[in-house]
Amino acid sequence: MTEVTDSIERALGEIKFGPDGLVPAIAQQHDTGEILMMAWMNRDAVRASLTEGRACYWSRSRAKLWRKGEISGQVQHLRELRLDCDGDTVLLLVDQQGVACHTGRRSCFFRAWRNNAWAVIAAPQISPENLYPAALDR
Amino acid sequence: MTEVTDSIERALGEIKFGPDGLVPAIAQQHDTGEILMMAWMNRDAVRASLTEGRACYWSRSRAKLWRKGEISGQVQHLRELRLDCDGDTVLLLVDQQGVACHTGRRSCFFRAWRNNAWAVIAAPQISPENLYPAALDR
Repeated sequence: MTEVTDSIERALGEIKFGPDGLVPAIAQQHDTGEILMMAWMNRDAVRASLTEGRACYWSRSRAKLWRKGEISGQVQHLRELRLDCDGDTVLLLVDQQGVACHTGRRSCFFRAWRNNAWAVIAAPQISPENLYPAALDR
Repeated sequence: MTEVTDSIERALGEIKFGPDGLVPAIAQQHDTGEILMMAWMNRDAVRASLTEGRACYWSRSRAKLWRKGEISGQVQHLRELRLDCDGDTVLLLVDQQGVACHTGRRSCFFRAWRNNAWAVIAAPQISPENLYPAALDR
């Protein structure tokens, strides 16, 4: 094992993956603090993220490693990986290129419960058709 | 049903709870953007949070409704509930009284992967013994 992969295996050693091999992963824009999205990571996703310096997740719907932005181009450059007290949730501080949400919005959390209804509080910045010319990147 | 409970049932109608009846819930300090913790909510936890204006979760370890701060006093006043594009993750904008983490730290995400090691980047503000005189509030 090289020094780099050895180091990454030590990082993985502190993360408590669930019975399905996954941990929740929160992506936050590193400078503004905006929460962009929540996804899931398995060991391979953490390895790929640390090695490549970009957020990679496990797509539960596609059952495969998902390099965020691989189709849409909306890459999340990884600034720092953080781990919570129980070791079972990770926080990714990222620099989001473009938008995080498949609807074309900056953040996936664009609905707010206000005045007894779910209000849409952000507009798409990019048309979803322009994000996914051929396939679905989620 | 009263108007209030009717409204809350409509809020619940848009949330896609998992097979275990839970959704991940991210708590963020409403003004600073700091991510405080990640926990889980079931329908009762969402109901209680909206009704009482404070963050309530489902404690998986204790298998019961958990009114955050009920033992420690570290209440999270709910400022706004948000929902993501898929409807399967919620974001709670809160005003955290004291600290969120059972270790006495403001945030549970106090470990950062730096220079090939998990670095502790925040110190406890309160001794855990002072948070939990009798039982564990997690």
